[in-house]
Amino acid sequence: VIEPEIKNHIETDPFAKQLGIELIDLEQGYARCAMLLRADMLNFHGIGHGGAVFALADYAFSAACNSYGQTAVALNVSISFIEPVQAGIRLVGEAREESLGSRVGLYRLRVTDDRGKTVALAQATAYRKNQWFYPPASQATPEQGSNLG
Amino acid sequence: VIEPEIKNHIETDPFAKQLGIELIDLEQGYARCAMLLRADMLNFHGIGHGGAVFALADYAFSAACNSYGQTAVALNVSISFIEPVQAGIRLVGEAREESLGSRVGLYRLRVTDDRGKTVALAQATAYRKNQWFYPPASQATPEQGSNLG
Amino acid sequence: VIEPEIKNHIETDPFAKQLGIELIDLEQGYARCAMLLRADMLNFHGIGHGGAVFALADYAFSAACNSYGQTAVALNVSISFIEPVQAGIRLVGEAREESLGSRVGLYRLRVTDDRGKTVALAQATAYRKNQWFYPPASQATPEQGSNLG
Amino acid sequence: VIEPEIKNHIETDPFAKQLGIELIDLEQGYARCAMLLRADMLNFHGIGHGGAVFALADYAFSAACNSYGQTAVALNVSISFIEPVQAGIRLVGEAREESLGSRVGLYRLRVTDDRGKTVALAQATAYRKNQWFYPPASQATPEQGSNLG
Repeated sequence: VIEPEIKNHIETDPFAKQLGIELIDLEQGYARCAMLLRADMLNFHGIGHGGAVFALADYAFSAACNSYGQTAVALNVSISFIEPVQAGIRLVGEAREESLGSRVGLYRLRVTDDRGKTVALAQATAYRKNQWFYPPASQATPEQGSNLG
Repeated sequence: VIEPEIKNHIETDPFAKQLGIELIDLEQGYARCAMLLRADMLNFHGIGHGGAVFALADYAFSAACNSYGQTAVALNVSISFIEPVQAGIRLVGEAREESLGSRVGLYRLRVTDDRGKTVALAQATAYRKNQWFYPPASQATPEQGSNLG
Repeated sequence: VIEPEIKNHIETDPFAKQLGIELIDLEQGYARCAMLLRADMLNFHGIGHGGAVFALADYAFSAACNSYGQTAVALNVSISFIEPVQAGIRLVGEAREESLGSRVGLYRLRVTDDRGKTVALAQATAYRKNQWFYPPASQATPEQGSNLG
Repeated sequence: VIEPEIKNHIETDPFAKQLGIELIDLEQGYARCAMLLRADMLNFHGIGHGGAVFALADYAFSAACNSYGQTAVALNVSISFIEPVQAGIRLVGEAREESLGSRVGLYRLRVTDDRGKTVALAQATAYRKNQWFYPPASQATPEQGSNLG
């Protein structure tokens, strides 16, 4: 149900490319992606850097909230780190829409390791601009709550 | 007042090196660092990736909360993104201790651009482990609140 | 599986009583409670006050994280408000454990209205003290991760 | 510089009244208020309930973000609890604007006790609706960034 143009645009992300993040699944309001935690993504304690774990979660988030073709930007992300991760682990980041209004969307993010253990959890708010990188005329838009005027 | 061994240890951070982050200032409970926003740190909208901005703030945070030589790890970071940033901008990340207990420390993080404009603000909680990467006998430890038992 | 002494202790909460909050369900790491949104819980816009909605979520959270008899206190709660609520609505607050270590527990909170619509979502971190309001010898303690030293 | 009508409207808040919260100071983008922590605002551990502390911070926040006469609602509040408080303490809650756009404002909240010690810190995001409870024609509006389209 996702137009290829939307997925292609999301996959042009330079920082995600630099980190080797792969977009595995993209649906309206949902995204899943994966990243191998490389040695250059560790912190000075020798475990996965919070910034690398965040980048994976954040990319899943931006893929999910931009999945309608309407330009959405992050307002806030609150992330909790649960388990340290070692280099060589393949991490999976997932973003799931919890609510969608005309202006604001709320997402839950989860990063898991290769045994399915939760590494980090986050709650994230997106702001949807009056701007479309893939014009709405050419696609179906979902029904949206009018919780904000 | 910071032992060189502590600063050196913090500067070994592989992810910070990869991103070109420089530690400018380190005091007990405070850190400031800088990062040039490179073209490979943009997102698919062509502006600075939230993950790159977060990484800068997070590195300042981990430098500040590990500045006593006691191993501290991030429990939670809540970040708000205020202004988009363009490639080529030199960003400054700052972390300032708001409270310090024997187990938990709270920090405020700020990322600014080269004109001093705030790009992102965050509030972050660190957990201090029973573990020192630079032993406490060899340094003065600050007085700590006993707000948690 | 919850000792009555633990549930009784949690139900002595003066603020929850003042707000008419009722503890409906309590399990290890999980709690559900309900509150009628009264006219004295509105804000100056005439809708449910964020503080009242938060209090319901927070009480569910503290019930869940104290459900083992070990004294736990809130470190951080990040709450997102999704839908406004009117006076006269019966709200349900739910807290679910996402992870539990010897020192730190992470919880997801949700407040819903009487049609099951989500009003607010939160992510919350608890710190577990070396203190038990209901001694551990008399009960089974769950296996706990040792993610923090 | 605040129109009396705006202050009066903010002071009609039923939940703030119920909790005895007093609005001490209100400027554009800034508010300070006070609350005596009563015995019916404690939790089951016998210390100040997170919900009561939050309510004070949240009221200061809503006063600050509604200080222009434009209807603003809370999107997200991330609060960290630092010190427990006892009954009988007079708490002060303060909200300070960190950034203001046409749609979104960011605020830092602080609750202190009567000795000036920080009890809680928060970061809060407000959404500004296309709606004014005190019409803009009759007052000066501040210059606003156009960071979101």
